[in-house]
Amino acid sequence: MADSASDASGASGALPTSVTGLDLGLDAAQLTARLVDLPSVSGEEKPLADAVETALRALPHLTVDRYGNNVVARTNLGRAERVVLAGHLDTVPIADNLPSRLDERGVLWGCGTSDMKAGVAVQLRIAATVPAPNRDLTFVFYDNEEVAAHLNGLGHVAEAHPDWLAGDFAVLLEPSNGQVEGGCQGTLRVLLRTTGERAHSGRSWMGSNAIHAAAPILARLAAYEPRKPVIDGLEYHEGLNAVRIEGGVANNVIPDACTVTVNFRYAPDRSEAEAVAHVREVFADCQVTEFIVDDHSGGALPGLSHPAAAAFMAAVGGSAMPKFGWTDVARFSALGVPAVNYGPGDALLAHKRDERVDTQVIGHCEERLRAWLTS
Amino acid sequence: MADSASDASGASGALPTSVTGLDLGLDAAQLTARLVDLPSVSGEEKPLADAVETALRALPHLTVDRYGNNVVARTNLGRAERVVLAGHLDTVPIADNLPSRLDERGVLWGCGTSDMKAGVAVQLRIAATVPAPNRDLTFVFYDNEEVAAHLNGLGHVAEAHPDWLAGDFAVLLEPSNGQVEGGCQGTLRVLLRTTGERAHSGRSWMGSNAIHAAAPILARLAAYEPRKPVIDGLEYHEGLNAVRIEGGVANNVIPDACTVTVNFRYAPDRSEAEAVAHVREVFADCQVTEFIVDDHSGGALPGLSHPAAAAFMAAVGGSAMPKFGWTDVARFSALGVPAVNYGPGDALLAHKRDERVDTQVIGHCEERLRAWLTS
Repeated sequence: MADSASDASGASGALPTSVTGLDLGLDAAQLTARLVDLPSVSGEEKPLADAVETALRALPHLTVDRYGNNVVARTNLGRAERVVLAGHLDTVPIADNLPSRLDERGVLWGCGTSDMKAGVAVQLRIAATVPAPNRDLTFVFYDNEEVAAHLNGLGHVAEAHPDWLAGDFAVLLEPSNGQVEGGCQGTLRVLLRTTGERAHSGRSWMGSNAIHAAAPILARLAAYEPRKPVIDGLEYHEGLNAVRIEGGVANNVIPDACTVTVNFRYAPDRSEAEAVAHVREVFADCQVTEFIVDDHSGGALPGLSHPAAAAFMAAVGGSAMPKFGWTDVARFSALGVPAVNYGPGDALLAHKRDERVDTQVIGHCEERLRAWLTS
Repeated sequence: MADSASDASGASGALPTSVTGLDLGLDAAQLTARLVDLPSVSGEEKPLADAVETALRALPHLTVDRYGNNVVARTNLGRAERVVLAGHLDTVPIADNLPSRLDERGVLWGCGTSDMKAGVAVQLRIAATVPAPNRDLTFVFYDNEEVAAHLNGLGHVAEAHPDWLAGDFAVLLEPSNGQVEGGCQGTLRVLLRTTGERAHSGRSWMGSNAIHAAAPILARLAAYEPRKPVIDGLEYHEGLNAVRIEGGVANNVIPDACTVTVNFRYAPDRSEAEAVAHVREVFADCQVTEFIVDDHSGGALPGLSHPAAAAFMAAVGGSAMPKFGWTDVARFSALGVPAVNYGPGDALLAHKRDERVDTQVIGHCEERLRAWLTS
């Protein structure tokens, strides 16, 4: 908020150019470095949210709203379509990789460079430099994306102010190496429990072994053949995997419980209910005594057939790829807004100590988005 | 040691009748209560070992040796046979169940009543009251039976002074409800590891799932048919069981390692090497990448065909049972001394808060042993 920025600058009245101020006149690469050097580990986004809000409020063509450390800015030009550009403000914990460092090859190193302050810089540059876009624009900056789903700022805004997120199409500027990644697969986590009866292992026949009872579950998993459906021209790839297994009481006790944690990643042509039903069916005759849905996030259809999406694809070029991992595009999908991932940065470098971004790709993404929104 | 006992009594010179002194003229039930009220949790056996040593040194027909908190007393009458009566001095931790309490039905309650101060009381009563036995006698009192095997006092004596344990037959006075339990099964613990390759579970086909790779191991365990061989008239019962299973890195990662901990309890007609070979063979084609012998204690043959054992069986009556759990009889067996478990107390009450012993059974065991050793 302006208050903090003013406090930090020690000035009042004028727009801040203080240590927490953001100069949107910088180019996207310089602005990325500036954002990276304002640390914003999940839960500590307030200074950055304040700086973003202050910078956006200085732009007369935008209406700015704030909810917690989430900032939403919109044009209201009465265009036929509205598109949303969204990005999260937070990063994973710093790993001795701040402040940022630009090397001689134009690569910017540091926590959050790829995931996703380069994307946030592109959002801010478009906000500042496209005052009269061909489609109404909504910019969303949110907190707590890197932590538990219930803390996610986009989810909080969707619940409290769903109208702020309304639109015909959304672009999430998550790192995708400047390629469009469409929709996302759903992810379902189920705990499968088997039970038995404890006994001393010296008299094992007095008990019943719950780990042995898990044998059919593992056999089913090992034999599972995942689907690869094609949706909107994108080939998804499902997967059903044990991600954990736990059983055992002591080294001389026949265990009475075993839990296999299964993660089902499913293509967005299945609904959440269908995904649960499928997993139930796979293990139907495996003597599972408890079937617990531990976590579930539905998938998102790519929506590439929508006119705004088609125009976007034409403007950014290249061919779209399916998104296998779950991302916040699914939150937009749940609100009826088709969404894709498109941003600078490399997802494979995210969360790493040697996280970095090629600054050329940042400018490239900014140009492509500007072309789409001004052509 | 005498020193401590004297210190505690504040007297010197005379045999102690102090707080730490043991009056071997008490009956077996009273003596059990006295022993129970001298706490001796594993690692803290010194006061009790001192009291036992002092009491035994007062008996002129015995030669007494001590090694650490282990006390060995022997007759040296030149008899044709020598038998060993052994028991451990330690208990599991006290669980609000001291001091001892004798109820109106003659049941003595408290930590160590069953396991195995009732047995130690019988040993001490025989030591004190059978000065001219028909077989030479060796009494062994040792520490740290209830904790890790490498701390076991009987093992320490066997290593440092194997001659102290020499004999034709041994009786371990562990709780067996006054029934003879012959020999013991071996116990082998093996870690079976499977390996894979980590990947994000959203792109599971990029990795290889080590938990799925454990499917054949569990299938083999679930289908295993244990042997029940009859040895010296006793039917043993083997068992091959998973006692633990662990795998998993995070809920969104394909796991690269899984470990199944298997416990093989085997009849004493298999050697240790044969037991390991058998387990290797069972899992030979299961793609186990590491096979680690984590713990191994061989079994003990019941040795009931030995003349001293046959005379013992005739004197105590009843029929022998096989011992399924591993006990210190195997240490005697390894020294070439056939051994059985025979003692008052109920193994099923051992280590419990409501541990107790029927005092009638204590006296009964004492009488039977005396009959065997004096007939």
